[in-house]
This record gives sequence, C-alpha cells and structure tokens, in this order.
Amino acid sequence: MSTKRIALVLSGCGNKDGSEITEAVALIVGLSRGGAELRFFAPDRDFDALDFLTDESLGSRNMMVEGARIARSKIRALSELKAEGFDALAFPGGAGAARNLCDWSEKGAQCAVDPEVRRVIEEFHRRELPIAAVCIAPVLLARVLGPKGVTITLGDDNEAATEARKTGAIVETCPVDDYITDRVHKIITGPAYMYGSAKPHEVFDGILGLAQELLEMA
Amino acid sequence: MSTKRIALVLSGCGNKDGSEITEAVALIVGLSRGGAELRFFAPDRDFDALDFLTDESLGSRNMMVEGARIARSKIRALSELKAEGFDALAFPGGAGAARNLCDWSEKGAQCAVDPEVRRVIEEFHRRELPIAAVCIAPVLLARVLGPKGVTITLGDDNEAATEARKTGAIVETCPVDDYITDRVHKIITGPAYMYGSAKPHEVFDGILGLAQELLEMA
Repeated sequence: MSTKRIALVLSGCGNKDGSEITEAVALIVGLSRGGAELRFFAPDRDFDALDFLTDESLGSRNMMVEGARIARSKIRALSELKAEGFDALAFPGGAGAARNLCDWSEKGAQCAVDPEVRRVIEEFHRRELPIAAVCIAPVLLARVLGPKGVTITLGDDNEAATEARKTGAIVETCPVDDYITDRVHKIITGPAYMYGSAKPHEVFDGILGLAQELLEMA
Repeated sequence: MSTKRIALVLSGCGNKDGSEITEAVALIVGLSRGGAELRFFAPDRDFDALDFLTDESLGSRNMMVEGARIARSKIRALSELKAEGFDALAFPGGAGAARNLCDWSEKGAQCAVDPEVRRVIEEFHRRELPIAAVCIAPVLLARVLGPKGVTITLGDDNEAATEARKTGAIVETCPVDDYITDRVHKIITGPAYMYGSAKPHEVFDGILGLAQELLEMA
C-alpha cells in the first residue's frame, strides 16, 4: 500500500473564529496513525479575530499564519494546492469554516464560497478523490456540490441542516461519535462539535472513524 | 469512583510561543476519556507572540485569551487556581512553558518561574496531589522541585536534560510514546514533541498513557 497524501484546509486557529482545535488534531492524529502524509493549507487572507472570552474583535489576523499554530509551521497558501498528487481533501470544522472560508454564517445556503476553496473542492471532486468535512464545514460541500445531491451530516436535525437542504444536499442526522459516508460522491462528514455538549473524547472517536474511512476510500 | 477534577495550565496557543496544540488536546482527550472534569487556567499576562512562518514578532498577546482557543473559551486566570478542590495538575508543553511560564529559554536552570506557576506547583505538591508535565514543561517542575530530587524526563539525553540536572532533578530518557512516573513525588512526565521528528499519533499515545496514569494516581 503506497502512502496516502492528504490535504487539510485550515481557516485559522480556534473554534470561534478559525478551525476547531480538537477536531483538527483528531484528523491529524487519525490520518497520521493510518500512515498518511499530511499537507496543510489555508487561504493567505485576513479574517476578523475574536477574543474568545469577550467575543470582541481582536482586529485582523491571517488564516495561514494562525493555521500554522495547528500545523506546527508547515502550511502553505491554499492557492498552491492542486488535486494532482493528492489522494484526499479534509476540512476540520470551527466557525472559521462558515465565517472565513465562506459567508455561511451570514447568508446560509446563499453564501459565497472563497474562490480557492470552491476551486479545490471542485478539483478533488472532479478527479473522484474523497473529501471529508467535520462539524459545520460540510456546509462548504453542500454549497459547492449540493446541486449534485450529495449526502452530508450536520449533527441532529438543527437549523443548519434545514438551511443546508436548500442547496440540494441531502442532510442526515448522525451521533457525535459516528460519521456519514456518501459512497457515490465520495463525501465523508461527521458532526463533532455540532453537538455543543459533546465531550472531547466523543469528538475524537467520531473523527478517528472518519479519518480511517477517508484513508480507505483514498 | 468520584469524578476527578484536573487543572490544566496553558501558556498561549501554539508550539512556538504558547502551549503545543497536539499535546494539549491529547491531555484533554485522555483525561476526558477517563471521566475527569477539566478546568483550564493561564496567567492573565502578555507574551511576545510569533509569526510561525517567519519567526518574527506579532506583538503582544495575552496567555489567557490565546489559551481560550484551546479551552473553547472556558479558561480562568491562574491566580484563581487553588489546589483545594482539585485532584491533580497538568502542564502541556510548547515553547510557552519555557518562554512564558518561566524564562528557561534564556536562563536555563537559573530561570525565574512565574510566581503564580510556582505557587500552584508548590501548593499541589504540598498536598501530595500528582502533577503531570509534557515535553519541555517538566523544566518547571525541575526548577521548583528539583532540590527535592524529583525524577523527570525531557526525552533523550539532550541539552535540556543536562541543564535540568543542575536543579537537582534526576532526568531520565524516555521514548516518545511512553512516560516516566516518580511515585515518591507524584510527578509524571512525558517527552512528546521533545522528539522533533515525532509523529502526531506517537505524541498522542504517550500522552494518553500519561493521562491515564495521572488519573490513577489522583
């Protein structure tokens, strides 16, 4: 079995304004345990950083620079990511997926997706390479691939699920420690911290399963 | 068995200027899986934040505010942490442990430890509550408890180990996926990313074992 090379797309560092940290680490550990080679990417673009204690703005920070905290400095601009040479694509969740990689948090199913994010999703999908997304990040797949009728999960039957169905996506419920596979479209999604009361090890277990499934499909 | 309550002390968010993220999450997941209740603390004090891509300064950030990214906002000032009501104390690694919680990175065995960090280590130790530290964070225990002859690990027989021995601490080598227990002083330490080439799942496995040992001793 050759080593699988996986691209992870980050949106900053921290659940309120970037990538959810436990979800990102669970993906990293799960894929690392499966023997994969990981490459990290983020848009080289500013976002509005938040003070997690007061919810006030801390001013602008850069997604790639902050994502480097999770990636231990090994991160590149998303514009450099080409599907060629990769076996799969993965998005951890966190509000950054819905605030920075698109404007879902404001516009829901009518959101605009960052052009580079849209490009890489379309490119991996066109090559029939599997794509995984966790927590709120499946809305990116709904917005880009919803008209094809992809199946995703966003946890229980919540407002985000209702909104995501407007894209054409099929949205199924899924418990925190599990994931949903759309074998036709090669899409694997898991709820993770869509369950706000989830315990860290439950989030971890769900994503470990998702990571294993992604490697099997890659 | 009653629920164990564990205090985790963070120093920011990210391996170059704060708490190492994979190490912190591994501690969180390991302790969560063991049924513990976690409480996060960090000094309410500024540190010099770094751009992880260029190593240049990003200016001042606050340890508690940045630690809140790992803690999902549930973090308090270290000055509020009292050993009473807790069963154990734990420090993830990352350069923040040696730059922000003390000035080991400049002064080694002669370093000054943040007064609140020193106080909580002494307080937990006096009450015979176990203390865990990962990666470079054991130098805090060496500096505060070294004269008592505590045993720690800092990975292989590196410069940090040589320096830490000057405090009186006994420094043993330990592979990445394991940990060292000093039963007399109730100190548990693991090397994690002291091995720069460690894989994320190896770091994870070592810390899961350490977390389990901490809960058994608590």
